[in-house]
This record gives sequence, structure tokens and C-alpha cells, in this order.
Amino acid sequence: MADIENGPLLTDLYQLTMAYGLWKSGRSSMEGTFHLFFRKAPFGGQYCIAAGIDEAGDFLSSYHFSRTDLEYIASLKDGEGKRLFHRDFIQYLAEMKLECSIDAVAEGTPVFPFEPILRVQGPLLQCMLLETPLLNFINFPTLIATKASRIVRAAHGDPVLEFGLRRAQGRNGGLGASRAAYIGGCAATSNVLAGKHYGIPVKGTIAHSWVMSFSDELESFKTYVDVMPGNSLLLVDTYSTESGVHNAIEAGKRLREAGHDLAGIRLDSGDLTYLSWEARRMLDEAGFRNAKIVASNNLDEYLISSLKEEGAQIDIWGVGTRLITAYDQPALDGIYKLSAVRDMHGEPAITEWSPRLKVSEQSIKSSTPGVHQIRRYSKDGIFRGDAIYDLSLGVDHPGVIVDPMDSTRWKRFGDEYSYQDLLRPMFRDGAVQYRRKPLSEIRDYTAAQLKGFHPAVTRLVNPHSYPAGNETRLHNLRQDMIMDARESG
Amino acid sequence: MADIENGPLLTDLYQLTMAYGLWKSGRSSMEGTFHLFFRKAPFGGQYCIAAGIDEAGDFLSSYHFSRTDLEYIASLKDGEGKRLFHRDFIQYLAEMKLECSIDAVAEGTPVFPFEPILRVQGPLLQCMLLETPLLNFINFPTLIATKASRIVRAAHGDPVLEFGLRRAQGRNGGLGASRAAYIGGCAATSNVLAGKHYGIPVKGTIAHSWVMSFSDELESFKTYVDVMPGNSLLLVDTYSTESGVHNAIEAGKRLREAGHDLAGIRLDSGDLTYLSWEARRMLDEAGFRNAKIVASNNLDEYLISSLKEEGAQIDIWGVGTRLITAYDQPALDGIYKLSAVRDMHGEPAITEWSPRLKVSEQSIKSSTPGVHQIRRYSKDGIFRGDAIYDLSLGVDHPGVIVDPMDSTRWKRFGDEYSYQDLLRPMFRDGAVQYRRKPLSEIRDYTAAQLKGFHPAVTRLVNPHSYPAGNETRLHNLRQDMIMDARESG
Repeated sequence: MADIENGPLLTDLYQLTMAYGLWKSGRSSMEGTFHLFFRKAPFGGQYCIAAGIDEAGDFLSSYHFSRTDLEYIASLKDGEGKRLFHRDFIQYLAEMKLECSIDAVAEGTPVFPFEPILRVQGPLLQCMLLETPLLNFINFPTLIATKASRIVRAAHGDPVLEFGLRRAQGRNGGLGASRAAYIGGCAATSNVLAGKHYGIPVKGTIAHSWVMSFSDELESFKTYVDVMPGNSLLLVDTYSTESGVHNAIEAGKRLREAGHDLAGIRLDSGDLTYLSWEARRMLDEAGFRNAKIVASNNLDEYLISSLKEEGAQIDIWGVGTRLITAYDQPALDGIYKLSAVRDMHGEPAITEWSPRLKVSEQSIKSSTPGVHQIRRYSKDGIFRGDAIYDLSLGVDHPGVIVDPMDSTRWKRFGDEYSYQDLLRPMFRDGAVQYRRKPLSEIRDYTAAQLKGFHPAVTRLVNPHSYPAGNETRLHNLRQDMIMDARESG
Repeated sequence: MADIENGPLLTDLYQLTMAYGLWKSGRSSMEGTFHLFFRKAPFGGQYCIAAGIDEAGDFLSSYHFSRTDLEYIASLKDGEGKRLFHRDFIQYLAEMKLECSIDAVAEGTPVFPFEPILRVQGPLLQCMLLETPLLNFINFPTLIATKASRIVRAAHGDPVLEFGLRRAQGRNGGLGASRAAYIGGCAATSNVLAGKHYGIPVKGTIAHSWVMSFSDELESFKTYVDVMPGNSLLLVDTYSTESGVHNAIEAGKRLREAGHDLAGIRLDSGDLTYLSWEARRMLDEAGFRNAKIVASNNLDEYLISSLKEEGAQIDIWGVGTRLITAYDQPALDGIYKLSAVRDMHGEPAITEWSPRLKVSEQSIKSSTPGVHQIRRYSKDGIFRGDAIYDLSLGVDHPGVIVDPMDSTRWKRFGDEYSYQDLLRPMFRDGAVQYRRKPLSEIRDYTAAQLKGFHPAVTRLVNPHSYPAGNETRLHNLRQDMIMDARESG
């Protein structure tokens, strides 16, 4: 596949037509505040691991319409066969510099529903152009980092290897997912390109085709361990797992004579609990107590939990399709909503951010007006709750959170709580505002952050509700605006 | 995001370690035959639309390890901390030219379980290196083209627009899916980059943020139609669909006075059947009988069928998340299996293709040995059944097919049937072997091919079983080899 360059055309056409509409109607100076967030955590959990922010930063830093982009836009026609965009607008795009200011949580931060992962402020027409690419850059990595964190949790400290490239949704579906899975806690990937570009450890030994290309399995194993004595993890189920383990032991003896250790075996089919017991017993009896048992075959957090509970003797988990595509929920419902506008140069001028609301018959789908920040409260070294607050309204100290869906549920954070605000400057004046951390540091940060919550909060099934919602003043602003909209509607 | 170049590292590490094993153990001359196929059609259907072959061809044509690729491979360490690959092997890779011969069905061809979409033959170590990228290139587009064909079928001739980029699994997850969705029959995409690169028609007008950036909805609509009178499709549910339609009508009157037509409205929430009736009635009463009603909001083939059945007055369907991620089954189970080996220069030499089998306790997972071709039989202009046959065994004329899962089910194709063989040369001597067709031609081809089956075969739910399976001689070879393997096992 020919490489297709990244660029501003990675967006929906309506972002361009709206930008044109603003420009042509003299509204280029209008500014907007947008928040990128999700409404419901995936997989029955409560949280997401925010990811993709660093990659979004790369995209923003090089944002530029190329000559061929502009030619393509100029070639588009409307429903009457006329040019969709005036050539002066094409020239405007050619000269346009991104003036948006973006604040974001740190890559790998656990976040909760309605909390802004990004806050984008600047010329409304630029904020619109960025909606689709920002959602594309954030939604999927966040989904996969979250899925990975759940699988890693289920493995209780055993290494989890990500093996998904062949079933990924496209090339970036594989690359981006390998990166996100590593942030979420995976130990390594099979994807060599992800290893090269992101510095993720890569793992792998043999497939069925290796074994099948020999006239017998034992010969295939012996050949492999002769060639790669330091990488001897043998796939044992090509013909029958029992004879496979037997042959792996024979190959292991040969390795040992040559002064090496059998790294282990991989089970890829059948009843993994039963086969792992049999394999462990055979390996132990033959003196290969250090040989690891790797399991793969449609694994996810639920199957790993169940195998663990049954006492399966599995040391390392290879996870592919169900991780790389987030099989049980393959899309995050991340959205990007306008919540305030201003227009310094409009007539009349709007010099302060004016909150905006979209109402919906479903209360959860009514938006939250204002300009938001997330405050995360801690006590005794544990995260206790999050308040989404409006920057101009501030926090009604001691902070009180109201669950956006149920105003009778609230939590007070007194002086005994410490706090930090999670959104920090990410992008200003066309440039990323922070030092990009190595991926392994991000992975460590995510693991440490997850440990900062009570374990019940990150539980896989029926997690304990973590108090996260709108601070009182913001809650009241939203309620008042919903009432006004309904009365005038 | 910095662009990451395509290349041979888009593979699993074990492909490289196996290639190394073959090279180091003196097996570089060994050749293999692999087939890429799926075992079960997705979404409860019977068929897949094969896609991604052309993009795979681009990848193969430029297959080349770059200097940094080789440096990365050379830097990898084994479990004992030693170099994983000898530097002579790195040199071998640097000089390696792809010698594989690949046969493929034409892009956009409907195929059935176990039928090879690709047949890859050549040096075993090269066939292995290609496994992961070929699966990555074919699995996902095939899944999405198939999903799109189902959604288009449900829409019964109404245009289906693909709107999925923001929820796609990465950038290529969006780009590749837009392309595949168009092959499967979608009329247009919202993805501008896909429009530029693939020539797919692009569509779009306004979002909620446009409406919200104005102090009232009517003003927002009037401004939009003044600016883009030839692209006036108005989103009506920002505040309430009823008042939205009312305001769209007002904007439409203004348009009409200026000599233009209201293109239509878009419904994006609420009960689409009820709202479409109300909207149609209001539009008709105001004299806008030509204004189209577009619907979006979590649509897929099932919801579209249900809305159609209820008589929803919807003319155009905008489909996003559920198409772009194939939400109800986000991965195709495509696999790539070794089925024959030969070694002209081995000791002993194997001069003819020697069939290979992987047995499994699950009969469906036992592989099919040999070198395969697909023969599709027609009568009276309708496709009647497919035989997978082995090139050296040939077809036992008149052809008889046996369902691979149930040998009592078979079908005879007498002289009254015509046929064509579907696999054709795709890649030889490092170059693609056919003229690449424009995407719109591929889309037309796919639509015509799908019409070639009895409608019951492509039915969305409980389709009529289409006879596709192994030709008798191939069936017998497989049965004999399974028996032999079980007896010796």
C-alpha cells in the first residue's frame, strides 16, 4: 500500500463546509470551546485510560494543507454542480495557521465519563476542522489501552503479550493498538513495526507452519532450538498437545546438553486449564521446572479470570483479536461538544466565554456548558473522587460533586483532601507544550495511577462507583440552562 | 502523527525467527504453498466480499527492508541477551527479492468459507514473512466490504453514506474502511482523505456545533443556505426535531426565493420512523416534496430493515460506527495455512508439491492439503455452486462438491453448467500482474456479482445454503490424510 500522508483532509466534509460557512458569513473571528469526552466507560467498567494524545500532538504540530489537498478541495462540487468552495477560501486555508489552544490530561491517565480528555479553544472554524481527527486519534487508543488494562488486571501480574496485528482493523489499527496496549500494561508485542517505532519489546518464536514444513514435529523442534537456543518457546499443538509437549521435552534435553534452557511451550487450542496441568506435570517430571507455559486462543479478561480461577498453570498470556479490536465493544463513544463561544470582534462583541448547551430528550445526552477543568481529590494517598468544574465559576470550597445523572448523589471534599487539576497545556501557538515521555514511562505512570484507586473501582465486573461528576456551581449552571431551553422551546 | 513507512516490518516477530530458522538450517530453498481464507462468514451470512487485494499488491511491489529496518532487526536480543539474528542473515534480508507467486480472486469478488482469497507459493521463508501483512491487508477490508454490502442490501436501493471516521480503529481503520465500504456498495463517504485518495464521492453539510454557535436555529439555517445554496441539507435535531423541521422549511422558502431547492434534512436522534413521518408531512405540506430525509444514529442492516418495514419515510441512510468497525463482529477469522511443500534442491529433493495437513480435534479446524483453485459454476446466468479443487488432482468431471463438514451433502455439475476459475495471477517476479481497476469499476463489479446469486443466498438472516466445498478428489485426499495422521498419532 502506498503511504498516504497525514494531514488536514483526515476529517469529515461537513467540518470543511461549516468552516466555509463561518468564513463566508463573516464569522471567522468567532471562537469556541469544545471538550472531547466519553459518556459511558466501555466493557462494563468505570474508567478509560486516555491515550492517543501524544499522536494527536504530532498531527497538530504538522497541520498544513498541501497543494494537492487544496486542489482536491477546490475540485469539489455542490448538489447543483457548482464549486462547493470559493477560491478565496482555498487561499484562506492555504495560509491558515492553527491558533487553537488545547489542554489535555497526560497520556495514560485514567479518566471517567464526562471528564474532558481534551479541551480545545480557539477559532470556531479551526475547532471544527479538528473534531474528526482528534476523535479518530483519541477514541481508538483510549479504547485499547483501557481493554489492555483490564486484561493485565485479570492476569494478576503475569506478563500479557499482544499478538493482534493480523486481525487488526488496518495497519494503524495494529500499530496504534500495539502502542495503546503497551500503555495499558502489556509486556510486549509481536508487531515488529511497533517495536521499531515505539520501542515496545517484541516477542515471538514459531507458528504451526514451522512444524508442518518438517516431516515430523520432533525434528522441527530440534532444528529450531539448534538455531535459536536462546529463544526456545515451542508451539506444541500442531498435531496433538500431549505429543507436542513430549517432543518439546526431548528438544529441551538436547538444549540442556548444549548448555541452554528450554524457555517454554505455547498452548494454542483445546482446554487450556486441563492441558496446562498436563503440560506442567510433564515438564516438571522431566526437570523443566523453569520452562514457562504460554497460552493463546481467543483470550480476554473474562477467559483469563476464569482460567486463573480454575488454577490453570499458565505463566504468560498471548492475547490477539479480542484485545486488538476490543472485540466485545469495538468503538468508544467519544464525542466532541461545543460548550461556549465568544467573539471579540463580532457585532455585538462577546468578550467573555458564553456557555452553550445542546438539550436532548435523553438527559444524559444534554451537554454541559462552560469551560471545564478536572480536579482529582486524594486522601491518604488514594484518589477519592473527581470534580468537573467551570474555570470562570471556580470551585465552591469545600468542593461538592453532583452526579450528572442524579442530583441527590453528592460528595463533599473537605480540607483533609489534597487535589490536582488534570488538564494541562498541550498545544499553544502551533506547538506542543510538553516534553513527550518515552512510552515505557507512560506505561509506568498508567500502572501507578491505576494503583492509586481503591481496587474495587477498577474491578472487572460491577466496579464500585467512583464519585466523579460536576462541581455544584457547574451543575447549577447546566440545570438552569436546561430549564431555560425547555421553557423557551 | 508522524507517518510511519510501510514495509516488511509490518509482520509478527515469529515470522522473522522462523525465516531465520529456515535460512540457518539450510532450508532457504524449501518452498511452500499457503492459502488465505476464512472458515466462517461473518454477521450470520454466507459470503464475504474479498477486498484489500489491490492494497496488498502495492505493499508487495515495494517490499524492501530499509537500512533502519535492518538496524532494528540486528539490535534484537534473545532470552539470553545474545543477538537474535546473525549478521549474515541481516545481509540476506537486505539483498532478498520477493520470489513468491501469488494468485488471487479479483478485488470485490464474493467468496465463501474455505475458498482461497489468495494462494501464495514460493520460498517458504518468504511466504512466512508475508503471512501477517497479507492477513492484515485482507481481513479488515473484506470484513467491511461485506458489512457494507449487507447494509446496502437492507437499504433496498436507497443511497447509504459512510460517516465513520471519528469512531474508526485508527487512521487506516478509517481510510481502508471507507474504501471497502464503497466497494461493498456505499454511495459516498464523509472522509475527505478517502475522497482525495480513492476518488470516492464525499458528502456532508452541518453538525450540531454549527447550530449551537448561533443564538438561534433559524438564523443558523438561513446563514448556511445563503452561503451554500447548492448544499442545503440541514440537521434538525439540535433542540427539537419538530421545531428543527419548521426552521428548515423557513430556510427552504428563503432558498426557493433565491432560485434554489432545499436539498433536505437530517434526523440524528429520537424515533426515526415517527419523526420521518412527521417531517415528511411537514415538508410536503410546505411544498418541499423533493427534499430528502437523511437518517443517522447507530444504524446497521438490522435497524434499517426494521425502519423500512415500519414504513419510515427515509431516503438516504448515514451509517457510521456500526459499519466502520463492523460493530457486531469486529474481526474476520481469516487465516493463512500451509498446505504443500516442495524442495527442488533439498536432500532428498521434493520435486512435486507434497501436500501438508494440520489436524485438529475440531474437524473444521483440520486444514485442507494441496494447491487450490476455485471453480464457480453457473447455469441460466445464475451462480450455482463453487468447487475448491487441487491443481494436480484436477476436477472429476462432472464435478461433484462435498461440503467439507458433512460428506453426505454433495452436488453434481453436469455439462449444462458453465464455469470460471476465480484465482488468477496477481503477483509474479516482484510485480503485480494485472491492471488495477478504478474503484468505481470494482464497486460495479461487486454489485453485478452479488446479483448473480439467487437472492436467498445473500439474504441477511438465515440465508439459503450455497453449495461451496471441496471437489471429490480433494475431499478424498484430505480424508485419507486425516485418517493417516490419526492412525500414526
